[in-house]
Amino acid sequence: MTRLVVAGGNAAGLSAASKAKRRNPGLEVEVLEAGPDISYSSCGIPYLVEGQVEDAGHLLVLSPQDAAERGLQVRTDSRAVAFNPYTKEVVFEGKGRGRDSVHYDKLLIATGAAPRNPFPGGGLEGVFAIRHLGDGLRLMERLQAEACDTVAVVGGGYVGLEMAAALQARAGEVHLLNRGPRLLSSMDADITDGLNDWVEEAGIQVHLNADVKRFGEGKAGQLGSVEAKKPLGVDTAIVAVGVQPATEFAVKAGVSATKEGHILVDDQMRTNFHDVWAAGDCVAARHILTGRPTSVPLALPSNRMGRVAGDNIAASTESIPGPSLYFPGVIGTAITRVFGLAFAQTGLTEQACKAEGIDCVTALIESKSKAAYLPDAADMAVKVVAEQGTGKLLGAQLVGPEESGLRINAAAVAIHAGLKVGKLAEVETAYAPPFSPVWDPLIVAAEQCAREVRK
Amino acid sequence: MTRLVVAGGNAAGLSAASKAKRRNPGLEVEVLEAGPDISYSSCGIPYLVEGQVEDAGHLLVLSPQDAAERGLQVRTDSRAVAFNPYTKEVVFEGKGRGRDSVHYDKLLIATGAAPRNPFPGGGLEGVFAIRHLGDGLRLMERLQAEACDTVAVVGGGYVGLEMAAALQARAGEVHLLNRGPRLLSSMDADITDGLNDWVEEAGIQVHLNADVKRFGEGKAGQLGSVEAKKPLGVDTAIVAVGVQPATEFAVKAGVSATKEGHILVDDQMRTNFHDVWAAGDCVAARHILTGRPTSVPLALPSNRMGRVAGDNIAASTESIPGPSLYFPGVIGTAITRVFGLAFAQTGLTEQACKAEGIDCVTALIESKSKAAYLPDAADMAVKVVAEQGTGKLLGAQLVGPEESGLRINAAAVAIHAGLKVGKLAEVETAYAPPFSPVWDPLIVAAEQCAREVRK
Repeated sequence: MTRLVVAGGNAAGLSAASKAKRRNPGLEVEVLEAGPDISYSSCGIPYLVEGQVEDAGHLLVLSPQDAAERGLQVRTDSRAVAFNPYTKEVVFEGKGRGRDSVHYDKLLIATGAAPRNPFPGGGLEGVFAIRHLGDGLRLMERLQAEACDTVAVVGGGYVGLEMAAALQARAGEVHLLNRGPRLLSSMDADITDGLNDWVEEAGIQVHLNADVKRFGEGKAGQLGSVEAKKPLGVDTAIVAVGVQPATEFAVKAGVSATKEGHILVDDQMRTNFHDVWAAGDCVAARHILTGRPTSVPLALPSNRMGRVAGDNIAASTESIPGPSLYFPGVIGTAITRVFGLAFAQTGLTEQACKAEGIDCVTALIESKSKAAYLPDAADMAVKVVAEQGTGKLLGAQLVGPEESGLRINAAAVAIHAGLKVGKLAEVETAYAPPFSPVWDPLIVAAEQCAREVRK
Repeated sequence: MTRLVVAGGNAAGLSAASKAKRRNPGLEVEVLEAGPDISYSSCGIPYLVEGQVEDAGHLLVLSPQDAAERGLQVRTDSRAVAFNPYTKEVVFEGKGRGRDSVHYDKLLIATGAAPRNPFPGGGLEGVFAIRHLGDGLRLMERLQAEACDTVAVVGGGYVGLEMAAALQARAGEVHLLNRGPRLLSSMDADITDGLNDWVEEAGIQVHLNADVKRFGEGKAGQLGSVEAKKPLGVDTAIVAVGVQPATEFAVKAGVSATKEGHILVDDQMRTNFHDVWAAGDCVAARHILTGRPTSVPLALPSNRMGRVAGDNIAASTESIPGPSLYFPGVIGTAITRVFGLAFAQTGLTEQACKAEGIDCVTALIESKSKAAYLPDAADMAVKVVAEQGTGKLLGAQLVGPEESGLRINAAAVAIHAGLKVGKLAEVETAYAPPFSPVWDPLIVAAEQCAREVRK
């Protein structure tokens, strides 16, 4: 019997395990998960904290029982800490179980990424770096015990903003400390214009250019302050300054990775070792536009990579492997809600093009979200980025009322299709007064951008 | 001086006039409009009736003064009734002005389409076929005079449903009489499943298979009843059984048209006559998927055709014509709101494929509109239609909560790009819990459809 060991029991790991078992039911599949839960929606934690999700159990996509019904063996509290690609052993350990090892015929590394928490004092009671469902639950307990009076959220990116908004609904006072001069800095400055005021008007105290140095101790072992320019007394802090791949054990074993530790894979999720695959947030996949290995630690690419890996792992057990899935690469589509506004992006921003040395043209247009004569027509803005010379669409960004957020998907399709902005401007989009202006803002931006392209 | 005469002062006509004047400011542009207003949003009339738009003036996109500022001469109450392509005269007439004629060097036919009203008694006081802003205003007056107690809306398509919903908010009792066995029959039956109950639950009395024979007289000259299977006493009726092109005068002059009277044009909006163009609802443009002349009497194609016509008309006045716009064709994208639900479609339905003799495969999936654990996650359904053999995306349809409606644009882009469903299934769509499930419903439907394609 062939044994597949999956290190990591979340989106990529469970997608892979399920897919592999479906394609080859004879496969013995063992999932090693470091935490106590498998397959939960970590993106849902802010909504749990905010109180929109009543029961943390709702965030579980798959219970261990569900996994067992799919024929998967799951060991929680089992962190992979080493593996030997020659003897094909994975070593794992857990608080409750000590150290153990297991033989694999096929290995998938799907250990994800862990929140960065580089600050001295980051281990104090009251400091949270949200990753596991348990982190969310501990924060909930703290809220229920009314121990969150003054909260600092460190980091003004997607996760920081979502957590700040969630806590604003529950805690006394929320401070958002952002290292740089503006929030959501993965987007271009012109599209996030006004975001700072918007967040402050919602009641968050925003500290820009706040270079957090450390967390200070209050009562013994307890968080008492966060120290940036000057110390700020807080009882609770959320650290949301990005993630790092949990791949140390794999890199030590010789798996090829970027210098940040993201594992390098081909489009079937194979690593440099025979019989070893990798998928999910721990991987740098090919960026469709730049061709470069790029980490997009988001749910959809992780799930998709997992499925591709599982399919290819099962195919590798076939005497004559049948056709199998491939991973198309990433473009970096993301969306978030900030107090009733949607911010969304896909592909490359103007600033990313500059960093990559890509000569680009852009257009930013302001529009109403629906027919201007309707009382709930709201302001929105769309920015389009295209390659100079060819006019190929490289990216789009938008801000607008919540219901306008998914307009970004039309641009994502256009990027995957390799459309030029002039061609995107020809699309017959949907119009009715409650949904859109006659000329869809994305179409208008694409048309304006096409005029900037040098013939 | 070269004179452009534009017959028709709405979306296509004014877009063309403005564009032509911008490209060639030396052009003398004269617009002949049959009604009292130019360039109003007829799609906005239901929201005026419903009371969402307070002032009918808000529906005017361009006032005669605005037009004058653009250098356009506008004559309202001036219906084009004949033209001679050899002497280049257009004859027009109006209630207030009698008969007159004007010479043209370039002529644009943009006379639009008029609501069909084939029923005996259709001219009775109280029967409305909504086209002009004035029709909406007369209906408003009737509502304000509390003369709309029992209303019949004849026709269960997009316009009929929008008017029924608008009147339901204002009138006593609303009956919707639909000739066939189901509402919104331009969409496939499986995607409109449940629509009838939904509309009835909202308080509309729906009469299916109701073949309206005539309107009956009540008080002298006043509507008293609508007669289908049995007579129904009503004081007001809206006729919404489709439109017909207002092109009789042009067809009489020898302009090539379909048998329904839609003018045939090339992709620069030229008719068969030298110096005569046509644009808007009176035209049948090339369908991108079938290649056949097809009427899509909707605002966006009309505006776009107008712009293309105006650009080409101006180009034709240049000694060496520069590059000019072309019309990419239509695919038939449409969206409507029905009591909080969005219905949207793009490209070909399954039933349209059957009618066209196109061998197709389909997939219909049900999904939540956002992360299932959020309390406001709603049900939605997406249907995808692809060409058998090639897998080329031919169409998509969806039903879901209002904010899901614009998801259709992603499919519209894919159709314009000629994507196969297997490729559409690879797109990295946007995910965050308040916006979407991890796997976007369109992507899931595309993937499922791809499996049906014969290799």
